Amino acid sequence: MKDFLSKTADLNRSIISEDFEKTLEIINQRIPLTIFRYPTGSKCFDWVIPKKWIIRDAYIKNDKGERILDWRKNPLHVLIGSLPINKEISREELFKKIYISDKYPDLIPYQFKFYKLDWGFCMAKNQRDKIEGNHFKVFIDSEYVDGDLLVGEHIIKGQSDKCLILMAHIDHPAQVNDGLAGAAVLIKLAEELKGILPSYTLKFHFLSERIGSIAYLYHNYKKIDEIIGGIFCEMPGVHNYPLVLQYSKWKNTRLDRIAEYVLRSSNKEVVFADCFKHVVNDDGFYNSPGIDIPCISLSRSKPLKKNDLYHFPFYHTSGDNLENFDFKQAEEFLSILKRIILILDKDRKIIRKYIGIPCLSRHNLWVDWRIRPEISGNIYTILSKIDNNLSIFDICQNNNIDFEEVYKFIEKLKDSNLIDLESTESIWFSSNNPFSKLSNYIKK
Amino acid sequence: MKDFLSKTADLNRSIISEDFEKTLEIINQRIPLTIFRYPTGSKCFDWVIPKKWIIRDAYIKNDKGERILDWRKNPLHVLIGSLPINKEISREELFKKIYISDKYPDLIPYQFKFYKLDWGFCMAKNQRDKIEGNHFKVFIDSEYVDGDLLVGEHIIKGQSDKCLILMAHIDHPAQVNDGLAGAAVLIKLAEELKGILPSYTLKFHFLSERIGSIAYLYHNYKKIDEIIGGIFCEMPGVHNYPLVLQYSKWKNTRLDRIAEYVLRSSNKEVVFADCFKHVVNDDGFYNSPGIDIPCISLSRSKPLKKNDLYHFPFYHTSGDNLENFDFKQAEEFLSILKRIILILDKDRKIIRKYIGIPCLSRHNLWVDWRIRPEISGNIYTILSKIDNNLSIFDICQNNNIDFEEVYKFIEKLKDSNLIDLESTESIWFSSNNPFSKLSNYIKK
Amino acid sequence: MKDFLSKTADLNRSIISEDFEKTLEIINQRIPLTIFRYPTGSKCFDWVIPKKWIIRDAYIKNDKGERILDWRKNPLHVLIGSLPINKEISREELFKKIYISDKYPDLIPYQFKFYKLDWGFCMAKNQRDKIEGNHFKVFIDSEYVDGDLLVGEHIIKGQSDKCLILMAHIDHPAQVNDGLAGAAVLIKLAEELKGILPSYTLKFHFLSERIGSIAYLYHNYKKIDEIIGGIFCEMPGVHNYPLVLQYSKWKNTRLDRIAEYVLRSSNKEVVFADCFKHVVNDDGFYNSPGIDIPCISLSRSKPLKKNDLYHFPFYHTSGDNLENFDFKQAEEFLSILKRIILILDKDRKIIRKYIGIPCLSRHNLWVDWRIRPEISGNIYTILSKIDNNLSIFDICQNNNIDFEEVYKFIEKLKDSNLIDLESTESIWFSSNNPFSKLSNYIKK
Repeated sequence: MKDFLSKTADLNRSIISEDFEKTLEIINQRIPLTIFRYPTGSKCFDWVIPKKWIIRDAYIKNDKGERILDWRKNPLHVLIGSLPINKEISREELFKKIYISDKYPDLIPYQFKFYKLDWGFCMAKNQRDKIEGNHFKVFIDSEYVDGDLLVGEHIIKGQSDKCLILMAHIDHPAQVNDGLAGAAVLIKLAEELKGILPSYTLKFHFLSERIGSIAYLYHNYKKIDEIIGGIFCEMPGVHNYPLVLQYSKWKNTRLDRIAEYVLRSSNKEVVFADCFKHVVNDDGFYNSPGIDIPCISLSRSKPLKKNDLYHFPFYHTSGDNLENFDFKQAEEFLSILKRIILILDKDRKIIRKYIGIPCLSRHNLWVDWRIRPEISGNIYTILSKIDNNLSIFDICQNNNIDFEEVYKFIEKLKDSNLIDLESTESIWFSSNNPFSKLSNYIKK
Repeated sequence: MKDFLSKTADLNRSIISEDFEKTLEIINQRIPLTIFRYPTGSKCFDWVIPKKWIIRDAYIKNDKGERILDWRKNPLHVLIGSLPINKEISREELFKKIYISDKYPDLIPYQFKFYKLDWGFCMAKNQRDKIEGNHFKVFIDSEYVDGDLLVGEHIIKGQSDKCLILMAHIDHPAQVNDGLAGAAVLIKLAEELKGILPSYTLKFHFLSERIGSIAYLYHNYKKIDEIIGGIFCEMPGVHNYPLVLQYSKWKNTRLDRIAEYVLRSSNKEVVFADCFKHVVNDDGFYNSPGIDIPCISLSRSKPLKKNDLYHFPFYHTSGDNLENFDFKQAEEFLSILKRIILILDKDRKIIRKYIGIPCLSRHNLWVDWRIRPEISGNIYTILSKIDNNLSIFDICQNNNIDFEEVYKFIEKLKDSNLIDLESTESIWFSSNNPFSKLSNYIKK
Repeated sequence: MKDFLSKTADLNRSIISEDFEKTLEIINQRIPLTIFRYPTGSKCFDWVIPKKWIIRDAYIKNDKGERILDWRKNPLHVLIGSLPINKEISREELFKKIYISDKYPDLIPYQFKFYKLDWGFCMAKNQRDKIEGNHFKVFIDSEYVDGDLLVGEHIIKGQSDKCLILMAHIDHPAQVNDGLAGAAVLIKLAEELKGILPSYTLKFHFLSERIGSIAYLYHNYKKIDEIIGGIFCEMPGVHNYPLVLQYSKWKNTRLDRIAEYVLRSSNKEVVFADCFKHVVNDDGFYNSPGIDIPCISLSRSKPLKKNDLYHFPFYHTSGDNLENFDFKQAEEFLSILKRIILILDKDRKIIRKYIGIPCLSRHNLWVDWRIRPEISGNIYTILSKIDNNLSIFDICQNNNIDFEEVYKFIEKLKDSNLIDLESTESIWFSSNNPFSKLSNYIKK
């Protein structure tokens, strides 16, 4: 992750920009990407693709001609999306156009305006307070041109065309945990999964927050039934903070339940949040009415209190940088995410070929309850649940047994020709599934 | 309310009686009534309309010829429904025929007999204990004749013929909170709502407890599907006691939910009771098998304990009078009831005309979450619920947001042509409504 | 019970054996049995009927020729299912073949091997430790021959062919609470019920644990729909221990609910356990996938803790004998079981013949709420539930009213021709039943 983040952390990756495209190229060197292009002005549902923002230089000069703010040092120094300006102004006028962070007086805030356009600068409060003099030159060499919104997609083809979308946004300039680090985790995950043939196709999306997913879903709306779910990933490397699972709006789809199970069995402090109640990124649009794709979100953050918008220290400032990034936390995030994918991948619907309960000792499967009572007790519980619409995971979650233990026992039953195993596709959204509360849900 | 109650409080308003009819005439002077007449002896479901009870005079005289009990002072002095009598009796015989209240020795109890007919008197225990002498004349000039059970109906015609029935019983002689005061509230509510065209037709019923509703429903059974619900009102002006919502038997119809929401958001102490478990008046018959109209009950009372039948002090005595009536409490009762009616009236089913989540900033509807996080958070929650079978109220209740706030936002979406609004009629009893547990309920 | 247990307690009742057949004969002297015979080697679902085990004599002799272990004193002295042996062996070899109980050093453990066959002896640890000498003769005169697995069935014919199966296993040699005492309870129950014509047919099964039920169900699989439920009974006479109800896998069938209600209203300490979680006997197979007959289990035991297999003191030792059997506890167990059967038998579906709520006083059914508030309150609750798919028990359980009280009131309604009563057969597994959560359950 370090290598990728070092190359991309400081880039000026705004929604449609040179650096956004450059970031996709860097990803493409690691895992091959297909790039989708959606032109400025085209409509996607209720939304319209914006223009490309180009910036070449920007500064504030004092009356000695010294650059007291120099955009080349940090892309955050200019309001993201700023209009061009070239003007001499008074101290009073200048201060009105400088955004600062009261909470972090030593850090540059990350500020943006895309709809009510304006020009402006951002700097540390302490730096601003040291500005001397009364006359200044402000210069921003920016422009808006037609361009393409880009979405980068990496695919690991599965046995089924039904796919799971893993997504991270990479469009927050000079921010690390906020977006980019999610991409770093996904790249490494894709590399680690390389060569497997998963049950479901896995699609990795690197995009601009929300509008990227909106454009992608709009142009793939006819094939939307192929998408069985989504996982949005961000802020994996926040120091000291717990993993947060934000559920899909159904809260109990197979994806929600597997993610919940993996987090719970991680023996770490974890937080569970309702859909739309914690952080709303691309998952918000996936879960929205008419789209209706269950999408969970994984991040590291404190549980949000009412009116508290700061998910982690240095959020939306120049402090969200590599120096403050906790790689150990990000690695743990990756391992949790990977376990979710692997359970989802290995899970199978169990087709019973006998009636009742099999004679375990005839198949050398009997476990003496006087010697291993715990295993034996679970075996009865497992056998009682082997009915056609339940999967291995259903049994293990409902009874709080380790997935691997159940999986091994089920494989032995298969070897003894007592059962068959099938894809979970037919029970992905099953109202017959007694573990599901989705009883009223009929997928489109 | 004072005016109406002053004119009617002391009347001898028994089930079928002159004073009952007189009370309807007094109501009719305020709000026009249609009077339904159901003759003595006619059958209504399993019930039969009783005879009219007429009483002209009644007294107990001592051997000096003094009226030691005089019915003309208070209609409660005679057992309501008493047979005529004219006889000289001993002290012992007399005392067997006098009903008293041990709990309130200074008050006359309200006693009645309609089925196993008898004659009798009621007086304060302390008054009875002072009776001297051994020989008495008892005289009751009463008779039973054929008559008509009356139901008074006031209508506020709505856009739909589907109607809500608001009801109060006025048949408890010389009682105020117990029945009559509910009528006082309904009269004022009808006056305050005059001139509006509500979504649903509102029908105000003034009647004799239970038998009035039974007769009305029997004679309107063919049109019973037009009745979407009922609200029974009584005991609004009990001093110091909380509002009690007794649910319909379903407990979660739209009517139950709106009433519950309004009571909860009143920031007053309130009590919630299950159907048939608190006070069973006309609502009992509305909710009964084969009728199956959801009917809630609003009253002021303490939560009933087992075997404790006294809903408020002076219940069923001469102390349930105007002197002990708390008009401020009754006004608050009225305002709560009115809010229930208004939310029910303004609520609309939302028809989404876009897919996903709209681009709020394009429609000038975006609220900056950095400035107004609470509103903004709710907006996402609201947008995520805009699906065809939910109403404005559904969204606000489920997410605990103020109805007016949601209503205003929904109106803006309508102005932006993003949604249409429709009557809630089609989702009044909807098993598709995920907020409802009425899944098995199919209206007739 | 004492008589039956005295005759059978010490018998060597292994799965297929002379003493098993002898035990059935003793039962047959009390209540007539039909004996089903399933021959060795025949397949039943995934299971195969084993051979008959015959044992004639067994001992260990020391070098003085003295029997230091004599099988004739207690059938537990030989590993149940032991292969024959006739051999001189060393002290070291002998000790490897002697099973003891560390927990109860004065008692002989009950040990068995039916699949990985071997020979062996069982004795008290303290007895074993006193063995002197270095050379021994071990002798077991046993053999395996073809035979028949026996199932004894006693029937009390009901109005319906639909039947309830009451079962106890009698195949644990020289054990009392563990199996045999359940049979003692069932015999007495059958005698007490003699002469009644129950609603549902009652079948009493005396069999070998699990394999008996498996064989019976296999050979009656075509008529499996006639079986509406099962009750497995064991360990009724454990001293000091509470009654345990282990639910069927649905947990809320009519049978589960009646049993739960009876136990709760017994005012005794009782324990409720989920299916497959406490003791898994024949009920495990009844509840298993593809069989799907709701079967509860009644026993006396402590609530099992994880890894604690000892349901009661002396479990699986020679201490599970008549001396340690508590007949008072067993009688109480019987009375509870009998009440379950009687409620199940008397319960009826109520067919309402009126609309709304009847006029109780017209039918002399009115109870003055001022005099008997509790009864009266319940009457409204009862009347509100009289709808076509509910039974008397449904009403009484849901509202926590005494079954007999409701039953009497319902009988009065029947006498007044207000309702009809029908068998509960049509609502035994009803998804329309609002008291049931079996909504997805469709019987085969």
